Order: sequence, then C-alpha cells, then structure tokens
Amino acid sequence: MNEPFARLESVNPLPPPAAPGMTVTDVDTPALLLDLDAFEHNLTQLSQSLRGFDVRVRPHAKSHKCPAIALRQIAHGAVGVCCQKVSEAEAMVNGGVGDVMIANEVAGASKLARLAALARTAKISVCVDDIANVAELDQAARAAGIELTVLVEVNVGANRCGVEPGEAALALASAITKADALRFGGIHAYHGAAQHLRTPQERGEAIAQAVAKVQQTLTLLERNALHADIVTGAGTGTYLLESASRVYNEIQPGSYVFMDADYGRNLGDDGQPVQAFRQSLFILATVMSQPVATRAVVDVGLKAHSVDSGMPTVCDVAGARYLKASDEHGVIELSGPGKLALGDKVRLIPGHCDPTVNLYDWLVCYRGERVEDIWQIAARGAFY
Amino acid sequence: MNEPFARLESVNPLPPPAAPGMTVTDVDTPALLLDLDAFEHNLTQLSQSLRGFDVRVRPHAKSHKCPAIALRQIAHGAVGVCCQKVSEAEAMVNGGVGDVMIANEVAGASKLARLAALARTAKISVCVDDIANVAELDQAARAAGIELTVLVEVNVGANRCGVEPGEAALALASAITKADALRFGGIHAYHGAAQHLRTPQERGEAIAQAVAKVQQTLTLLERNALHADIVTGAGTGTYLLESASRVYNEIQPGSYVFMDADYGRNLGDDGQPVQAFRQSLFILATVMSQPVATRAVVDVGLKAHSVDSGMPTVCDVAGARYLKASDEHGVIELSGPGKLALGDKVRLIPGHCDPTVNLYDWLVCYRGERVEDIWQIAARGAFY
Repeated sequence: MNEPFARLESVNPLPPPAAPGMTVTDVDTPALLLDLDAFEHNLTQLSQSLRGFDVRVRPHAKSHKCPAIALRQIAHGAVGVCCQKVSEAEAMVNGGVGDVMIANEVAGASKLARLAALARTAKISVCVDDIANVAELDQAARAAGIELTVLVEVNVGANRCGVEPGEAALALASAITKADALRFGGIHAYHGAAQHLRTPQERGEAIAQAVAKVQQTLTLLERNALHADIVTGAGTGTYLLESASRVYNEIQPGSYVFMDADYGRNLGDDGQPVQAFRQSLFILATVMSQPVATRAVVDVGLKAHSVDSGMPTVCDVAGARYLKASDEHGVIELSGPGKLALGDKVRLIPGHCDPTVNLYDWLVCYRGERVEDIWQIAARGAFY
Repeated sequence: MNEPFARLESVNPLPPPAAPGMTVTDVDTPALLLDLDAFEHNLTQLSQSLRGFDVRVRPHAKSHKCPAIALRQIAHGAVGVCCQKVSEAEAMVNGGVGDVMIANEVAGASKLARLAALARTAKISVCVDDIANVAELDQAARAAGIELTVLVEVNVGANRCGVEPGEAALALASAITKADALRFGGIHAYHGAAQHLRTPQERGEAIAQAVAKVQQTLTLLERNALHADIVTGAGTGTYLLESASRVYNEIQPGSYVFMDADYGRNLGDDGQPVQAFRQSLFILATVMSQPVATRAVVDVGLKAHSVDSGMPTVCDVAGARYLKASDEHGVIELSGPGKLALGDKVRLIPGHCDPTVNLYDWLVCYRGERVEDIWQIAARGAFY
C-alpha cells in the first residue's frame, strides 16, 4: 500500500472481542457477529437466483470491507469486487483480490497516483463523469506507465454522480478512447435510490426507466463505433431486474451477504417482506443498566451502529423495541412478554449494514452457539 | 493495556491524511480538521466562564477520544477526564492521564477485571445503578487488590441509566460503603436530555429540577451519615447552571472543545445562538463530481460523519446546503451565489461531534492555512 505520510504511534485496532472456540454468549460487547450458516446461504442463494441469466457478478465490497468475504464471493463465481475508494481497493488487493472496479469517481492527484500504482499489481477500473477528470486520469496512468480501464457513469435516476444519458455520455466515452493511457470500459449505471423502494412495482418501474436510459446511450455509442464491454449496476434490492434486462451484463450487489433492518422492509409480489437472503449480520449488546422493569439500557449506541436508516431491531425478545440511541447507550423498551436482565446479552439487527460495519475492526464469525473464526474488517475507515 | 485475545494481522489505522507544514488545501480527504486558534480559545473560555464558581472541571473524553487533547485540558486546570468505556479509559491512561472517572455503568466480569487492573496505575472511579453491579465491582476490586471509588448514578430527568433520587440512591450508597473494596465517592447526576433544549428557559427549568432531585438525595444521605464527596454532571449546554447551583461540585462538559452544528442551534438570553465557544472541528471534503451547476457531490458521506443530529453545515460557500448523505457521498445543493467546482476542497461542520470524531483515526491540527500537528484519536473505536 502506498503510504503518503509517516505512520505515527499505532494503538489501533483494539484486540478482537472474541477468540475461536468460545461460545457466543462469552463474546465481549459491542461485537459485530456473522452467522456463518446464513452468510453461506446468501452466497449460494445469489448464485442460484442468477441461473439462466447471462451476467457476471462483481459484489460491492463497500458493504463488508473484509478481504476474507471478498475471497469467498470470488470462490462462489464473482469476477472480482467493486470498491468506492482507492484505500478500500488497496485493502482488497493487499488481501488477495486481483480485480477491483472503483464504482465511483476519484478526484485529486495524490489519490489518482495511488490508483495508478495499484494497477501495476491488479486489474483496476474506475468511473468518470467529468471531462477534466479524464485528463487527470490519463496523466496519472501515463506517469505510472500503465493502462487504466475507465467506465462512464450515467445518471439513471439517483441524481447523485453521473452524466446524463445520451450525448453527454458519448462525449466522455470519446474522450476516454482518445486518451493515450485509458481504455473505454463501458457504462456504470447504478440506481441507488431504487434499492429501497418498498414494492416490486416501484422497483420495477425505476429499473425499467434506468434500462431505457442505458439502452438509449448504448445505441448512440454503437452508432459512433464505440462499444461498451461492460454495462454494470444493480444492488441487492433490484439485481434480478437488471439481470433480466439483457442490457446490463454485470451486477454489483453488496448488502446481500449481510442484509439489514432496512432491506428487511422491502416487499415481494406477495406483499410480504422479501426472504431470499437471510439476516447474517448482528450486533451483540450487553444490558448494562435496567433502572425499571420496562427499560433495559444496552452498551450499543451511536458509536456502534448507524441510525441513518432507523433504529436496530431487537432479536429473540418478544415485544422489545430499541427506542433511542445516544453516543454509548441504547434504550430498549420492554412492553411485551419478553424480559431482559442486567448482564444479559442480546442480538440486534442494524438499521443499515454498510456504515455499521465500518465502525468495527473485527467480524466475529459463529455457527450455532460457537465462535468459529475472526475476520479483520481490513478496510474499516478506508475512506481516502 | 489488557489484551484479552491475540491481535491478528494489523493493517489499521491507515496513515494520516496530512503532515505538519503542509497547507490545509493539500490535506487528503476526508479529513478531520482542528482549528487550533478556536480550540485554544475554547479551553480558555471554559476556565474564564467558571471564575467565581467553586467547581472542579473533569471534561468528558468521549467527545475527543484523544490523549493529546486530554493533557491540554488538564494543563488548563481539569482534575482528570471522564470516559464512558473501560477501553476508552485504557487509552487515556496509556496517553498519560492519571485520573479517570467512568461516568457510566460497567457490566460483565471481563470488563470489570480490566477496570480494576487499570486502578493499579491510575486513579479510577466508576458509576453504579444496580445492587448486583455493586457486588460484581467489589469482587473485581478484591481480586485485583485495589480499592475502587464508586458513585451512585441518579436519574435526574434523562430517563436512561440511573436509580431514582432518594431512597433508591441511599440503598446503593449504603451497599457501597458496606463492600470491602469499594469506597462511596458521591453522586453522578447528568441530565443529557437537557443539553440541547433550545431556549435558556427550558434548560434552566430542566436543571433546576435536576438540582432539586440531587439536593433531596444528598439530604437523605446526610441524615444517614453518608457524605457525597463528589456531585458531578453537566454538559456543554448547561454547565453554568450546575456550576451556579452550589450543589454540584464537579462538571463534565465535553463538546465545548469542538462544538457542532447541533450545539450551534442552542439559543442564549438574547434569542441568538450562544457564541461562547467557537467551532473548532471541521471535516474537509473534496468535490468529486459536479454533474450539474447546482449540485456538487463531495467525498464525505455516512462513513465520514454521523447524521443522528442532522446534516452537516457547509462553510465558506454562500447558499450551499448539504442535502443528503449516502455511504460515501454527500450531495450539496448550490442554490445561492456560492460556487464549487470539481476538485475544490470545502469545510463542513458536523451535525454531532462525538460520533463523527469516532470515525477518524487522526486529527489534523491547523492554524491559519498551515497544518501544525497530527494527533491520534487513540480511543477511536474503543467501545468495549
């Protein structure tokens, strides 16, 4: 890994909260738990659900930030992984992943130099949505003596990054082909806002619109003798739609390995929550205070889960509800038959897996009641 | 530091995003910036505002998690620091702090063993709100051959941890005095919910009620020949009220060193935002995409700031508003005269300082336009 500035005294990361062989109830808290049976089901379920579709799988590693998981995804047929940041990609390459697409723009000379350096030892591709960025990328690739594969990011409805479909995308693709050290790789068309639309009708309409925008762009590119090898996008909420489109040929779901409370609210055709993937990710909490019978306070607050998509769900305790989070505390209301007592350990399902995983250095992998392995979340905090 | 389980391969933390001597605009992003002039103003301002009050200052280190800051607070007269977690206290003691109060309950044998071990090399105190926890604490202290100072946490309105004022507090204090290896240290009465009440009237009423509950408890204790040496509480929003109460003799403000967008919404007697402390903490972001003139996308999303208290404020760009955050992106709406372009760096004021600081390993300290120092956030992720 390229280290631009000297490391100072290093006390982090803290040691893991568990060791293989111990029982889950002995794990120190807060801890991030991975149910290996559910996780392995999810790996297999993704492959099985894609039978008959002609798409490559390149899971997004921003969800797990863990090379041990990336290698298992690749063993299940993935062609590589997506990352969002150069430092995240560095952690993946260090961990043994040989093919990384940065599904995002990278701006600034120092980051681009690191990106180009990484392309000396792994297959690296990256997205652009700005002509000035094409020139920067070309310069960095030439300086490193490598060729970079560059995809054009197209805005298909998320209104975040990406040029508009059609002429703007064509202009960027042309600029890439004209650059000395860049190769036009295709189209990045991820509809992030569609992933958590609750009904299959809403998700279907959003992706149908995205597919039309991509198709329109591809037609224009072909008319100008430009071929997009890769057409990529899709997340856990919509990947079957992109896979069935015959327009996308690569998909990048991330959350499917873990799932979270927010994804648990997506509905299927029967009006019930979609159940294809199982919840494998949990936070283990300890009741550290119980001032009154109807209130248990756990040691898992804002520094141990992200509340951007709502509060965590309490497992295994009937009627228990995680009511509010402060920095180091979570208040659980016990209004049902389920009880908790001081020192009890309780599993929570985080509201949103990605930013929650980023708070932890270690993933405690268990099967049944036994801790089987500890995996490092090597790209924790890798946001450069 | 006590390490219950073996360290595995260690790649974290990532190197710092800057080095002393460089200019702020050359700092890699996302980065957490500390304006040293504003920070030093805040240290002095706290001391000056307390002239004439008979209270000790024990700032809460959960806000900064940084021994370099704790030592500067102590140099400005603080008697030590508060922590919320044993691992946080370990990081502070390792960093040279000799007196730590855990302003929180600690449950479970392994954490209590580490707490007691820490009391061999530093002055350590801790809170309880449960009779069973008193017995656990006594056992851990006896096993370590030390005496622990224990405060009774009283619920003065936050409805989180803490026993009710009066008889319940007396029962716990009595149990502590009867335990072989524990010393009754006093009352912990922090009203967290009062800190962000917007008007001085609301904050005044909340703290008046808290003071009455503490006074009632102290009277009952004295009647039973129990003396509370320490009566502690207060945060940045209310500390002048507790200091003026003549009931509290120790205060534990934390956020005052940094401030944040949420504290910036607290009003003073004149109906204007309170301005005693200056904003010293910023996140430096880079514009990584600007698909349309009215939208700039920065590289600072949910993994680089906490949204629990709202979105960050954009500095230095008139009319700019941080609209929404996704995992690695922040969308800034440019509806005013201020402009941004690809590659521009922009400072943000985080919505809530504590959980935001916990996302970073390094604090980039600057004065004017020049980086002066890099401080490690040594207790980042220290939630055990």
